Amino acid sequence: MSKKNAFYAQSGGVTAVINASACGVIETARKHGDEIGTVYAGRNGIIGALTEDLIDTSAESDADIAALKSTPSGGFGSCRFKLKSLEDNRREYERLIEVFKAHDIGYFFYNGGGDSADTCYKVSQLSEKMGFPVQAIHVPKTVDNDLPITDNCPGFGSVAKYIAVSTLEASFDVRSMAATSTKIFVIEVMGRHAGWIAAAGALIEDYGIPVLTLFPEVEFDQEKFLAAVDTKVKEHGYCTIVVSEGCHWPDGTFLAEQGTRDSFGHAQLGGAAPVVANMIKDALGYKFHWAVADYLQRAARHLSSESDVEQAYALGQAAVEKALEGKNSIMPTVVRESSNPYKWSIGEAPLSEVANVEKMMPMDFISDDGYGITDKCKEYLYPLIKGEAYPEYDDNGMPKYVTLKLQGVPKKLDKFEL
Amino acid sequence: MSKKNAFYAQSGGVTAVINASACGVIETARKHGDEIGTVYAGRNGIIGALTEDLIDTSAESDADIAALKSTPSGGFGSCRFKLKSLEDNRREYERLIEVFKAHDIGYFFYNGGGDSADTCYKVSQLSEKMGFPVQAIHVPKTVDNDLPITDNCPGFGSVAKYIAVSTLEASFDVRSMAATSTKIFVIEVMGRHAGWIAAAGALIEDYGIPVLTLFPEVEFDQEKFLAAVDTKVKEHGYCTIVVSEGCHWPDGTFLAEQGTRDSFGHAQLGGAAPVVANMIKDALGYKFHWAVADYLQRAARHLSSESDVEQAYALGQAAVEKALEGKNSIMPTVVRESSNPYKWSIGEAPLSEVANVEKMMPMDFISDDGYGITDKCKEYLYPLIKGEAYPEYDDNGMPKYVTLKLQGVPKKLDKFEL
Repeated sequence: MSKKNAFYAQSGGVTAVINASACGVIETARKHGDEIGTVYAGRNGIIGALTEDLIDTSAESDADIAALKSTPSGGFGSCRFKLKSLEDNRREYERLIEVFKAHDIGYFFYNGGGDSADTCYKVSQLSEKMGFPVQAIHVPKTVDNDLPITDNCPGFGSVAKYIAVSTLEASFDVRSMAATSTKIFVIEVMGRHAGWIAAAGALIEDYGIPVLTLFPEVEFDQEKFLAAVDTKVKEHGYCTIVVSEGCHWPDGTFLAEQGTRDSFGHAQLGGAAPVVANMIKDALGYKFHWAVADYLQRAARHLSSESDVEQAYALGQAAVEKALEGKNSIMPTVVRESSNPYKWSIGEAPLSEVANVEKMMPMDFISDDGYGITDKCKEYLYPLIKGEAYPEYDDNGMPKYVTLKLQGVPKKLDKFEL
Repeated sequence: MSKKNAFYAQSGGVTAVINASACGVIETARKHGDEIGTVYAGRNGIIGALTEDLIDTSAESDADIAALKSTPSGGFGSCRFKLKSLEDNRREYERLIEVFKAHDIGYFFYNGGGDSADTCYKVSQLSEKMGFPVQAIHVPKTVDNDLPITDNCPGFGSVAKYIAVSTLEASFDVRSMAATSTKIFVIEVMGRHAGWIAAAGALIEDYGIPVLTLFPEVEFDQEKFLAAVDTKVKEHGYCTIVVSEGCHWPDGTFLAEQGTRDSFGHAQLGGAAPVVANMIKDALGYKFHWAVADYLQRAARHLSSESDVEQAYALGQAAVEKALEGKNSIMPTVVRESSNPYKWSIGEAPLSEVANVEKMMPMDFISDDGYGITDKCKEYLYPLIKGEAYPEYDDNGMPKYVTLKLQGVPKKLDKFEL
């Protein structure tokens, strides 16, 4: 059996731990140098494959590859680029396989969410038909936690930890000030379609904080919400509100779109947090502060969960090991063995069952009043935020995050128009 | 010499390390139990003294007091309540001294910013005149870093570290995505009057990030700024912008006030970050993300700088030690002995020179173009963000922050109307 090269690419929104998966893929491939040749990476994701803009990862030192495990963001660049369906744009898939053929690539490791699982699946099918079979393995990644079969998705646990801890800290702050000043703190979190990240904010109820959470899964009811806020403030003196960016009115309009206009009349200037904060001020008169965490939350490698970092690495490692076992068209998964004590192992799912399937948050994770989470949800979440996996810091007090050399590979094919 | 009790109160906006100063005060007082009786704390700051709502800190265990060192916020409650001038409201100062007299309090430790230094100074003067001399020591605290004489103020170093690290992380994220998606990341930071915190964001220039910083000290010039952004994006593919909440137009109007209105016509809904982000989008068409860190930044004990935590504790400790040496009407200060290696010691300043003096950021800390910081500024900042002083975490993956018992002390005086 001739030694084949491998291709690795990062897809979609990056996370605090997608580079840990990259580290798992590359370190494991290096250990199997007798079976895998060079690992090429796509510069800026799959676009790098389409345009034959490959990065030679063998030019990176072992130390720099190891440092990826504690560096947030996509070290090779990522992209928001969804390949069309095979019927609509067969040439893109064929181009991928031509590039793989030109560079003798027999392994395709694609690190992303639902869309990239679908791409991975199609590459596997088409390459077979085109007579240049490529083993396509999908490495899961998404802060949205919406991939099926796997218990959870790398990236989510770290965002969840960051939001739970940060919201607790800010709530302690408000609690200190509430007697004479701020009584309401609103934090807006990611999750346009699902309330996974918002649910992490709701955990602070266990730490004595009066908190109301606004999920995308629950239609916003202004009157009921304001009454709930007032009750909390009257009882505790203050209240924290976690609002998902996907929180919406019964007609589907996002709260963030609630008529906010700048001086030029442009809509959607603000987020959901200021809308909620001002709504409370108008109705109840309470002084507020609000925060929008945005990229801070998904990039916060300084507070990643140890579970998340270890799983991200293990899934990258498993992708290579499974490829070497001859597996194809699969995604390694996290299997939860038990919650308390937390035990997990690596399983696998066929891409045919992963592609185009979105896992929603179970409705029995949301409390009856719609503003909190159930014990079942807490049992699911805590293991995912367990442990701290701190990066190293330099003498200045800044984290040692690596920037790779990203040395290009000479092109062999004609230019391709995207 | 008869043993006197002590009174401690937290004032103004709280920080990630004001409780470390409280810990320093109480632990040191406990070590000197032969000279200091009970340490009473004001519930919700100085209001607790005026209303005779005192907390008996001797009811808190040694372990809980020790845990204050790694708990953000004000453990005893703080308040935004500025005493009027002696001429305008002498009864408030007299009331303070009556309360101190009723509870045999001979030491007044007041932990806050410029206003509380002034209050502390007046209590010292008036108590002498009223025949019940109280030793008044001010313990510095402010994320605004604007107290005079001391090299820096506890609370600032931790915010600076949080902003520098978080902005670096989000910038790595944007760098990954810039080829096909977000090219502009805007983060809004605290500092209405001075650019100290914004300057910390500018440090990431040293870590390879194209960054432009908007200081309150520099009048906003839209045309020049947009040209600078465009240059950065054309050269690097992306650009990070750190905007101080105090950034303003030449007429003094804050950027945050720039005509933003909700559907009811209310102004000031958003912050400066969305205004800057939309301005760039309108003029240059670049896709953006923005974040407003708000309380997350000043409460982020999970990423406090070790320098900051140690100094906050040492200043609380020094306050008690200096009181026992017979000092009065002073503030212990941080004295910088050298920047590299960083060495500091504790000094002291007379409150007459602290009260009502605001230290501004030196103009030679801002680069010539107005969008960055000088080497002199970096030499000042790095030692303050040096080292990590992590809190402990529980088995759930959440930090072990303490909530005190806050047991009240029986009242001895008539009610006082604020």
